[in-house]
Amino acid sequence: MRASQFFISTLKEAPSDAEIVSHQLMLRAGLIRRLAGGIYSWLPMGLRVLRKVENIVREEMNRAGAIELLMPAVQPAELWQESGRWEQYGPELLRFKDRHQRDFVIGPTHEEVITDIARREIKSYRQLPRHFYQIQTKFRDEIRPRFGVMRGREFLMKDGYSFHTSFADLQREYASMHATYTRIFSRLGLQFRAVAADTGSIGGSGSHEFHVLADSGEDAIAYCPAADSDYAANVELAEALAPAATRAAPELMLANVHTPGKTRCEDVAALLDLPVQRMVKTIAVVRNELEVGAPGWFCLILLRGDHDLNEIKTQKLLGDFRFASDEEIKRAIGCLPGYIGPVDLRFAHMIAVYADRAVINMSDFVCGANAEGYHLTGVNFGRDVPEPYQVDDFRNVVAGDPSPDGKGLLEICRGIEVGHIFQLRTKYAAALKCTFLNESGQPQTMEMGCYGIGVSRIVGAAIEQGNDERGIIFPAALAPFEVVIVPMGYHKSEAVRAAADRLLGDLAAAGIDAILDDRDERPGSMFADWDLIGVPHRVVVGERGLKEGRLEYKGRRDAEAQMLAAAEVPAFLQGRLCD
Amino acid sequence: MRASQFFISTLKEAPSDAEIVSHQLMLRAGLIRRLAGGIYSWLPMGLRVLRKVENIVREEMNRAGAIELLMPAVQPAELWQESGRWEQYGPELLRFKDRHQRDFVIGPTHEEVITDIARREIKSYRQLPRHFYQIQTKFRDEIRPRFGVMRGREFLMKDGYSFHTSFADLQREYASMHATYTRIFSRLGLQFRAVAADTGSIGGSGSHEFHVLADSGEDAIAYCPAADSDYAANVELAEALAPAATRAAPELMLANVHTPGKTRCEDVAALLDLPVQRMVKTIAVVRNELEVGAPGWFCLILLRGDHDLNEIKTQKLLGDFRFASDEEIKRAIGCLPGYIGPVDLRFAHMIAVYADRAVINMSDFVCGANAEGYHLTGVNFGRDVPEPYQVDDFRNVVAGDPSPDGKGLLEICRGIEVGHIFQLRTKYAAALKCTFLNESGQPQTMEMGCYGIGVSRIVGAAIEQGNDERGIIFPAALAPFEVVIVPMGYHKSEAVRAAADRLLGDLAAAGIDAILDDRDERPGSMFADWDLIGVPHRVVVGERGLKEGRLEYKGRRDAEAQMLAAAEVPAFLQGRLCD
Repeated sequence: MRASQFFISTLKEAPSDAEIVSHQLMLRAGLIRRLAGGIYSWLPMGLRVLRKVENIVREEMNRAGAIELLMPAVQPAELWQESGRWEQYGPELLRFKDRHQRDFVIGPTHEEVITDIARREIKSYRQLPRHFYQIQTKFRDEIRPRFGVMRGREFLMKDGYSFHTSFADLQREYASMHATYTRIFSRLGLQFRAVAADTGSIGGSGSHEFHVLADSGEDAIAYCPAADSDYAANVELAEALAPAATRAAPELMLANVHTPGKTRCEDVAALLDLPVQRMVKTIAVVRNELEVGAPGWFCLILLRGDHDLNEIKTQKLLGDFRFASDEEIKRAIGCLPGYIGPVDLRFAHMIAVYADRAVINMSDFVCGANAEGYHLTGVNFGRDVPEPYQVDDFRNVVAGDPSPDGKGLLEICRGIEVGHIFQLRTKYAAALKCTFLNESGQPQTMEMGCYGIGVSRIVGAAIEQGNDERGIIFPAALAPFEVVIVPMGYHKSEAVRAAADRLLGDLAAAGIDAILDDRDERPGSMFADWDLIGVPHRVVVGERGLKEGRLEYKGRRDAEAQMLAAAEVPAFLQGRLCD
Repeated sequence: MRASQFFISTLKEAPSDAEIVSHQLMLRAGLIRRLAGGIYSWLPMGLRVLRKVENIVREEMNRAGAIELLMPAVQPAELWQESGRWEQYGPELLRFKDRHQRDFVIGPTHEEVITDIARREIKSYRQLPRHFYQIQTKFRDEIRPRFGVMRGREFLMKDGYSFHTSFADLQREYASMHATYTRIFSRLGLQFRAVAADTGSIGGSGSHEFHVLADSGEDAIAYCPAADSDYAANVELAEALAPAATRAAPELMLANVHTPGKTRCEDVAALLDLPVQRMVKTIAVVRNELEVGAPGWFCLILLRGDHDLNEIKTQKLLGDFRFASDEEIKRAIGCLPGYIGPVDLRFAHMIAVYADRAVINMSDFVCGANAEGYHLTGVNFGRDVPEPYQVDDFRNVVAGDPSPDGKGLLEICRGIEVGHIFQLRTKYAAALKCTFLNESGQPQTMEMGCYGIGVSRIVGAAIEQGNDERGIIFPAALAPFEVVIVPMGYHKSEAVRAAADRLLGDLAAAGIDAILDDRDERPGSMFADWDLIGVPHRVVVGERGLKEGRLEYKGRRDAEAQMLAAAEVPAFLQGRLCD
């Protein structure tokens, strides 16, 4: 490819509404252009990157035995009504009426459509298992689209759906997809982690997210860095183990201390000159599934002062809940939040006190006194306050917690979710009556898995992971071109022109995806463009070097360029690209 | 590929709502499935065909120097308001509001979006010309979608848009695209014709449609079959030349004949035992651009009895017009249509009489007498009726008319439009202020071309052109697989299994796209499936043949199978596929 026959449109400055570095760089490098909020055109340079992602995903899905098809973007409302999601989905489901006033959606996902295909086409256990996938444009009407293609409204996804005769066979395919996704993200040259994820209302452990690691990621991930551990989970899900240490005997007497205006654990700890780990935080919630005011409806959850409540775990333990209002707290405890605690509750028989595992081995701790401006010190379970009604895992893990696999201490990092695999089981198949005849000739509901990859989001995530002050640093597998040839004076020097043209031909013959920058631009401007675009390998063709039969090579991450014998350049680059 | 790892879903009968053969066969062969009216899923078998079309289109567009990008399906209303098409477009433009009540469309075409990109990204004549294209899903809310993917609502298109500094450069690119489209449809193995098309409100001759020839086509095409002629035009546009013969002298006297109940030319001709070519048909229209009742508002157009009015030509000659109502005709002429004619008009000074070129050299003709139940015979211009106000080309050409290029006589065939190239000139660029700085540093509006190919429609058109009573006959370039290997007893005979597996490997090594049918089905059922699906080459592996080292070959169009030495089969098939 020659730059003069391609389209390069770089910008000196990123538009001010681009918040994160990948969005800024994608605009500056001319990969995308905004058409409307969360809706982007992929310019030729960006489309090459998108297609490289798409092709690797397709190759690996095919290798794993999945079969590609293509479902429509526009879907009739009837199927969504049948699955129940027409009502469940919020306004991010784009609904519209056609000219005959029939209801449709622009699909944000295709469980309904594929299940409809499966129930029509698959009749017998002999036709199972089958795994269908597509790479297709989706639309989700985000209330606040942002971060460019990372949280756009129109986006490209690979979505796959597998159908099985049994849960065991679904689990086999799920493991195969876990391995396939690992291969895909490895081939893409990304640093990533597969993490156990929450399965929401489905339950079970059958869901993993694949995260590209990046500080700007929206998700927090707990992982064990030990070499022999592969533990990783979304912080929402990672288990906080019970502490190994047992509760120490009380040493202090209970005391009421004046803590005016100190409603946060950190502030009370500072006032008392104690570590925040000595504080107990009391959170009041109400359980929506019980009648208002019934015993146990109003609950207190005790956490160590430096820990945070995990709402997903709490929901699993208590069922549907919400935080109590100030009014409700005042009525139950006689005091505003900030000074509440478990000691001497007025309506103790009505209030259920839960404690996180980390709290239950604390002694001589500090908590609210249930009186405004006062806290209690030297509090001890058994002596001053009854043992809690239930002890369990109510909190988010923090760095330094033991890994649930027993292989070390957890660390926390941030990630961008780029893949998600999920054992749907029979959720959609049952709703849409997607059955097959089993070996006994009886109709049986299919087991289903689903497997998504955010194809366009991967481009953004790769840039979050690979960039510097000069621009993007693409992994070679994703770069729009693997090599750029920059001639010094293509339009002035016959020798330079001939050498550059010859190199382009030699690289093409070697199967290397190269671009020759034959624009009539200043060298500094060409260098800046290609550093910004993030092409990983650069070869400069200059008259001086040519006199000695040499070309200048520089890798995108290299500090210095090096001179190479011209004849060796193709083999040298092949070696680099295979690294 | 092995059938057991693919997805084959054939039907014995086509659903009753499939009207044309390609739609029936696409459903029966399991290429597509209906999701909603005009909205189809492409099953794995169909997607392979679609991708083959897509890849050939992409290769040839790239070869011609066009640059691929990808624009969104969802477009903001603002751009359509700027171009004026928000108002001009009818309900086939799917409009919707997002969750913030902003107006959007699902794009049926992308002139606005690409022009917006060009006006932002292209500043100087040095960046021109540029040709951008995409292969992308579009939506058009057809009032009556039908014929499967031939007139669907959601469909796949290649749409390209070129930008130029001058009309001359647009014409150069237009000629290059004409050649590129010719190469694309040739490579696809289709019988097609490029025809001059109507350019609507743009004017000029800068538009060609590419039609796949098929009896079921919605368009009528006039073409000259002479070997040295490449004349072809949509019948809407083809010029009907003036007859070479001059008007003969009158021989008959004017006579009034009783023709009760005969209002059609054919019926009058039959009654009088005259050829219909001796009749003159009189059509009454009114010109919307004149004031009602003004002189020339009411017009008569005279056509030869066997000719039909061409409304597009009439519109170009008379401006906006409509057919006169019975009431208006009665008021102007004193008689109902069926018996009207140009002789002795009551309000002759108010009525403009136009004649088609074929009428003006007629003598002793028959026309309506302007009295119910009567026609005049022996009518002659000059003697009985004044020469018409204007003579021009008002009619559709018919088979046997002279070709406008003077190289023979026209024939008429039917075609399916699969491509359209168009010199847009500055229509969109002017509306959207898409300018560049020319060599003098002055802003100048870009010249634009646009070039479309109906990718999904091509699949249907190819099947309309290639089918028989057993199913589809795909050109090899479009077939989902080039070769099918059908083993007789794959699960019973070790020798058959080994030979079939070996052949599959050998064909893959030879670069042939083959499928091995390893399903446990009866031979007749496998043969029927692959004939239905339209795979062009079939190799049967049977124990009897193997004993002599032979395999059975049959081309999809062949009447008889032939036996080949097993070792020669790959080379034989390569030869067939290169034909």
